Amino acid sequence: MGRRTYPAPLEAIIRELARLPGIGRRSAERIALHLAASPVEEVEQLGRTLVRGRRALLQCGICGNLSAEDPCAICADPRRDIGVICVVEGPRDVSVVERSGLHRGRYHVLGGLLAPLNGVGRDELRIDALLRRLREEKSTEVVLLLSPSLEGDATAMLLQREIAAANPDVRLTRAARGIPAGGKLDYLDEVTLGNAFEGRREMP
Amino acid sequence: MGRRTYPAPLEAIIRELARLPGIGRRSAERIALHLAASPVEEVEQLGRTLVRGRRALLQCGICGNLSAEDPCAICADPRRDIGVICVVEGPRDVSVVERSGLHRGRYHVLGGLLAPLNGVGRDELRIDALLRRLREEKSTEVVLLLSPSLEGDATAMLLQREIAAANPDVRLTRAARGIPAGGKLDYLDEVTLGNAFEGRREMP
Repeated sequence: MGRRTYPAPLEAIIRELARLPGIGRRSAERIALHLAASPVEEVEQLGRTLVRGRRALLQCGICGNLSAEDPCAICADPRRDIGVICVVEGPRDVSVVERSGLHRGRYHVLGGLLAPLNGVGRDELRIDALLRRLREEKSTEVVLLLSPSLEGDATAMLLQREIAAANPDVRLTRAARGIPAGGKLDYLDEVTLGNAFEGRREMP
Repeated sequence: MGRRTYPAPLEAIIRELARLPGIGRRSAERIALHLAASPVEEVEQLGRTLVRGRRALLQCGICGNLSAEDPCAICADPRRDIGVICVVEGPRDVSVVERSGLHRGRYHVLGGLLAPLNGVGRDELRIDALLRRLREEKSTEVVLLLSPSLEGDATAMLLQREIAAANPDVRLTRAARGIPAGGKLDYLDEVTLGNAFEGRREMP
């Protein structure tokens, strides 16, 4: 009798969905069965939104963030402080910082972190574009907001060296690390705890 | 400054993905950012597979399962035992039983379980089609394989009554309930344990 599975068109949907990040075979099956039970028009709308949305997205020529316009809404906003550039790994980080409202400058999206073993070297990141901005825009400060990982640290060290060489007058800072708000001490890993101690300050 | 989020086309993708079952806002963001970083052609292929796959799917006129042909491959297979019908809720159940290889008959897909509070009444299920099959096909046995829930039990009781009235000669069985293989006793809920006791058999 052999191992039957789902009919071929459903299998094709499942396989395609299972290639997406965070979607396992089981989730893909669940979504595919949901689509199979949905009106054709709804699936067409989904397909249209994905394709049109993707086609409408481009990279801001200044900061490199995803955008529907070039320059993006943030870089085009005259109320932003052009002198302060927050350097992040990807568009998600921009969104997180924007929601916090803590940064009034602009961004620079690297498009990744140094990861030589995964084929991400210096030239895969938007570092030359950053150095060019530091020369052309009257930047006063660069804030590195990179993940506290080996890749984040390696990227920060490289940037520190290159930024100092390109524009020695710019102030280079890195977001503080330590105990997250609401974090329970007994759940903290040693690296976080180490950062918390290392970055300790005098109490006023 | 207001609360910026993602650019509009990306937001549209996120919202559309977040409507799918099991996809929360966070997973939708992750997938959308992945699509934004993928070549347009890949996203077009995804959209095409979803739409074409959905269009190619139909319901088997005999068993009601999802299929690319009518009748489906199972109903069209002359090696299947036409006399035994396994009644299930949906296409996923058919797939599970088929992978097990335990059932050599055909299926009947109800398309749901009785859930009056959710607007699923008798006539939303493919019950009339089942009764017709019992009259027209020379069925000898109907095996109910419905989930052990309130809805499953209500559906089973209704089917028992209607099948007995439509074809008193057919043998009606229901898959056994009890302790699942590999299940640890201390994790079992009381209902499962109750089923295990109630369904106990003499040891040979």
